[in-house]
Formats: sequence, C-alpha cells, structure tokens
Amino acid sequence: MDMPFEPQWPEAGEILLTPGPLTTAASTRASMLRDWGSRSLEFAQVTQQICKGLERLAGAGEAHVCVPLQGSGTFAIEATLRTLLGPEHCLLVLANGVYGRRMAEICERAGRRVMVATSSELEPVDPAQVLSFKQQHPELTHVAVVHVETTSGVRNPIEAVAKVAKVAGLGLIVDAMSSFGALPIDVQELSCEALISSANKALEGVPGVAFAIVDKEKLVSRVGRVDSLVLDLAAQWTYMKRTGEWRFTPPTHVLAALAHALELLEAEGGVAARRRRYEANLEVLWRGMSALGFRPLLDRQDQSPVIATFHLPPSLGTAFDAFVGRLQERGIVLYRGALTQAPSFRMGCIGAIEPTQLAIVIREIGAVLDVLELHPAGAAAARPGE
Amino acid sequence: MDMPFEPQWPEAGEILLTPGPLTTAASTRASMLRDWGSRSLEFAQVTQQICKGLERLAGAGEAHVCVPLQGSGTFAIEATLRTLLGPEHCLLVLANGVYGRRMAEICERAGRRVMVATSSELEPVDPAQVLSFKQQHPELTHVAVVHVETTSGVRNPIEAVAKVAKVAGLGLIVDAMSSFGALPIDVQELSCEALISSANKALEGVPGVAFAIVDKEKLVSRVGRVDSLVLDLAAQWTYMKRTGEWRFTPPTHVLAALAHALELLEAEGGVAARRRRYEANLEVLWRGMSALGFRPLLDRQDQSPVIATFHLPPSLGTAFDAFVGRLQERGIVLYRGALTQAPSFRMGCIGAIEPTQLAIVIREIGAVLDVLELHPAGAAAARPGE
Repeated sequence: MDMPFEPQWPEAGEILLTPGPLTTAASTRASMLRDWGSRSLEFAQVTQQICKGLERLAGAGEAHVCVPLQGSGTFAIEATLRTLLGPEHCLLVLANGVYGRRMAEICERAGRRVMVATSSELEPVDPAQVLSFKQQHPELTHVAVVHVETTSGVRNPIEAVAKVAKVAGLGLIVDAMSSFGALPIDVQELSCEALISSANKALEGVPGVAFAIVDKEKLVSRVGRVDSLVLDLAAQWTYMKRTGEWRFTPPTHVLAALAHALELLEAEGGVAARRRRYEANLEVLWRGMSALGFRPLLDRQDQSPVIATFHLPPSLGTAFDAFVGRLQERGIVLYRGALTQAPSFRMGCIGAIEPTQLAIVIREIGAVLDVLELHPAGAAAARPGE
Repeated sequence: MDMPFEPQWPEAGEILLTPGPLTTAASTRASMLRDWGSRSLEFAQVTQQICKGLERLAGAGEAHVCVPLQGSGTFAIEATLRTLLGPEHCLLVLANGVYGRRMAEICERAGRRVMVATSSELEPVDPAQVLSFKQQHPELTHVAVVHVETTSGVRNPIEAVAKVAKVAGLGLIVDAMSSFGALPIDVQELSCEALISSANKALEGVPGVAFAIVDKEKLVSRVGRVDSLVLDLAAQWTYMKRTGEWRFTPPTHVLAALAHALELLEAEGGVAARRRRYEANLEVLWRGMSALGFRPLLDRQDQSPVIATFHLPPSLGTAFDAFVGRLQERGIVLYRGALTQAPSFRMGCIGAIEPTQLAIVIREIGAVLDVLELHPAGAAAARPGE
C-alpha cells in the first residue's frame, strides 16, 4: 500500500469517509479487548451508563427514556415503528430520500397504515406539508422525518416540523441516525414521541447497536401489544428496567466501545465542540472538492456537517471504480454507489477525523485525478444541459 | 481484585463460564482493532469468507446457503420463522426448555400458526411426539427443535427428529445456537429447512451477529412475502448475493472477529477437536462439582458438552448472590439466575478455556464455599423430599 502520510492517518491504516461505519478513535477500538459477562452486575453498569449518557445528550427529562437495541440503525427504526404504531394509528412520512422512503416501506411490510409526502432530495422537506396532509387525511396520528437525510446530506428542519406536528396534534418520530451527536437535539423541546439513532455515526462508536429515545408513557401503553419478540421496545425497556440486563444477548464489546466513545464526546466538549469539528471538516471538503472542479449537489445552507454529496462528472462516470480503487490504495475509503437520483458520490465529514487529515485527502484526490487523467472541472463547466 | 492465578486466566482478567458471551481468544478480540468500510470490496471478502466457512461447517451442499443477520441469536430465530412460515404453514415446536418455548412465542407474536409439544426439561425431547401430533393435526407443515437446550444443557436427538419429520412430511427447523461448532451437524443429512446459530457460542466469536443455514429453494420462494424489513432473510440473501454487501450496516468489527474465530476453529482441528476439548471441560466440571457436593440436574448421557446445570442446594439458596460475587472477585463469572423450574445454576463448558483452567475454577469454588461456610454436600444428602 502506498501510504506517504501514515502518521496523519488513524493507526489502523485507513481513513473512512463513509457515513458510518466510520473512523473511530484507537482507544474506542481498544475498549473491545475485554470479554464481559452480559448478565454481570458490572456489565449492567455499562448499559446504564450508556443509557443515561444518551438520555442526557438528547435532553431527555422524566418523560423520555433510552431503549437500546441490538443491530443496525434500521433495526431500531423498525422496532420503534412496530412498537409505537398500532392498527388505530396512521403515519405520514416526509420523505426526501432513501431513509424516509425506508420508514414507509417498514410500515407497509408490517401492515401499519402509512402515507408518504415525497419531495426533492436536493431540498429540505417542507413542514407545511404536514398541515395539508392532516387536513386531507384526518386519520393521521403520527408524522416521521429524517433529521439529516444521508441520501444527499440535506438537513431537514425538525424543529419546524415539530411545531406543525404539535398544531396538527400528531406524534413526532425523528430518524436522527447520522445527526445525533453532530447537531443539537432536544427531545423535550421537540416533544417527540421517539428519536432514533445509532452508535456508529456521530457518536463515533462501532456498529452493532442502535437506540431510541422514547416517550415513556407511549412506550408503556404498548406493553404486550407488539407483533414481534425481538423488535419490541416496550418489552426491551420494561425488562431492562426491572433487571438491569438485556432480554437477549447484547453485543458486549460493541457496547464497551460505545461507553468509551461517549466519554470521548464529553471530553471533546460535547455536541457543540464536535459540531465545530465536523463543520470544519465539511469546509475543507467543500472548498477542496470545488477547487478540484467537483460541484456540490446541495445549496450550502441546506448542507449538514455530516455528509457532502458531489455530482459525478461525466468524465468520471466509467472511471469511478478506478478512482475509488486508487484512493483505497492510499488508505482513503469512499462509498461506491450513489443513493440520489442524479449521478453523485458522497464523502462523510463525521468520525474521528480532523480537518488537517481531510486536507491531505483532497491533495490525494487531486493526485489520483492526475494519474487517471480525469478532469472534473471541464465536466463541471459543461453544465447547461442539466 | 484477588487474582492469584492470573497467568492461567485469559489476559483480559476473567474467565466466563456463561453460555455466550463467553471467553474468547485474545487474538479474536485483537482482530477488532481495525475499522472497515462496510461497502468496500475488501469487507465483502470478509463476509464471503465467513459465509463459506459456516456453510462448510454445516455440511451444506448446493441446496443450502448461509444468511447472516445483525443482532443476537434470537434475532436470527425470529427472522427465520418469519421468513419461512407464511399463513399456509403451521409449526410444531418440541419444547423442553426456555428456548423451545421462545420459538413458540415468536410465532404467536408474529401471527404464525404454532403448536407446542411440551416435555420435561430434564430429558431429551421424544421424536415420536412428532408423529402423534401430525396424526392429530394434519395441518402441521413444520417442526422445530432446539439442539442443545441451554435451559438445562440437555442434548436433543435432532437426527431422530429429522427422520420422523421426513416420514411425517414436515419441514425441519433446528435451533443450534449453542451446539454449532461444538457438536457435528450436517444439514444435508438432516435435510433441514433451516439451522440457526450465533457467532458468540461454540464458534468462540464475540456477540453481535447470528446466522441461518437455509434451504435455498424455500428461501427464494419467500422473496417479497416477508412481513418485516430487517428480519427478512430472503431479502438479506438476495441482496447479499447480488452486491456482496449487507443491506443494512453490519457490525464490521464483530464480523472481523468471527472471521478470525473461524480460522482458530480450523487450526484447532475443526469441530471434532473442539468437541473433545469441551468434553474434557465438562468432565472436569462434572467430577469437580460432584466432589464438592453439587448434584447435576441431568443424567450424564443426556448432558451436552456445552453447559452443565447443577441443583442449587438449599444451603446456598439465599447465599447464591454472595457466592457469585466472591467468584467474580476471583475473576470467575457465573450467571446469576436459573432458567429451569427446579432451583439450579449453570456453568458453561464452551469458550476459549481449557480443562486446566476449569480445575482451578473448581479449586476456587471450593475455597469460596469454605469462606462462606457453605456445605452443598450436606444439602445434597438431604434429597428424599424431592
């Protein structure tokens, strides 16, 4: 492997610009070097420390509790929707990307009533849609929105959605998968029914566990009414509260890593400090990629400091795999494959990475473009047809 | 911590006699020190290596495929039942413990038709029950059985169950959670529809991922018919086959550990060698605990080399927490809490542990009993009332 910058890279040899799993701190990974008995009192303390920490980060008061769940973020999304929505409910999803549509698909599969307000993936969702849908469909009881839609990296206005949800009398469910830890979120201010996120995004843990911060009263009202054993957050919470243990074997090593990652977040200065670092990461990517001739997909003010999406220039189209492969040889990992309708590619701003490292990434990208004789600038200039 | 035997313990400081999570090899844990991009070609190779390895271990031919799933073993059990069973199916569960009953609960929750043949948790299930149930209930289409019921550690005769299932024309589903890797299993000989297990039992990986070895034809017949997004093994497999990637973020570090653990299993000499080590572990526990006055719950011939269960002597009843606590101080972790109807406690034989270490465990248990002035021998002698 050609790695001229080794000292600036994580010692594991790679820098992940993927939106989770992402680059974690060496000490977070090292906290997985111990085996834990999952039903020991000591491990119960790890679980409790994590749940309390996540509740604090979410601004939870007495009304909200943290319910962790094994699996990826989507497992927690499905568990939340299955748990909170019964046959008497009907959900509106504001969908401006893959993750919004995925919530709708979960409901359809699970036989829950759902409607979708689809809008452009290049712009934030429009909170006014909530009121117009509610007027036309009085049976609606809930609305769901993705905070940062990582399809494009667009930041949706969850505070404004929360306001109209309140006016419309709808319970609010927020997918905060990639934003939790990167942007301030207050479940009390949002007065949301549930907010879902995962260990391996802006919290900078490793993948394998996710969680929901849920309205306790709503949760309790669903005890014994969920049509799944493992995806039942009401049972997960009541069992955990009673015993301090997980119902089913938890990913002990992953949780030890999350407990440590939460300590690192606090040491960094909390969400405010982490957000500043991510904004600085984004700035380096935005300026650097623009200087190389790449054109961002979003307007700057809609862009979250989580993931940046760039148009895939026609000149790079067939050469994209080679481009990604050459970067991987230099220890820089990008996602292949786009999620947006327009040809694009994504670069993550989150993870245990610094602006100085991203500056080197930009230089390396420039070098790879030279080697492959690709010229996105020329392609970007040929915009009129779009 | 009072740890006079440190050199013989895993360097992480504890020996887990819990039936998964369990003690893993230091090198398995160390393989979690690297971050992986979950959609990189390199990680696709890790996934493929694991699936091929698990298929080989299960004796799979062309007819069976491995489908891994995020979460604990129960996640894979629910996913398998939801995926394979439609409204036209009806499952009989042979239940001689908690894990059998859990399969029935999953079906009830998910609205699948299910019947339970309950039998004593102190004895193996009776394969003849399959025929008598089928005669009385011709609507039965499937039968499920737990290979090693870790409620007590009893080994169920899955080969005999497979034979009568064939005669009765029923699809067979085997929960091989704690036995896979410890006992020989051949899905072709069993001609089973699905066999489910987890990374963190006899494979000696860390918790966070499970898998099913499934009849490919049955799996394909269920594409588009599963009432869950994340627990859909048909979609999981078709997507993985097409892309080499996981549908949803996999626990990358846990999978790296599993890939390494499978290499260690092969280096040890495969399932036959591992079984011999576990049998030797059981022998030390069985003899040692008996000598200390503890009475095993099962007949020796029904006892699997996975987990041994001992009667909880009345003298230890109220002092059990103190007993477990004192052992924990010495770096020995037991489960609190029994799963059997009779008061009991369990000691695992599986994990990266050796008979020599278990001999020290026995000595330590003797020392703790002395310190606490407990005398199980006397209690065991007072059997008549049972």
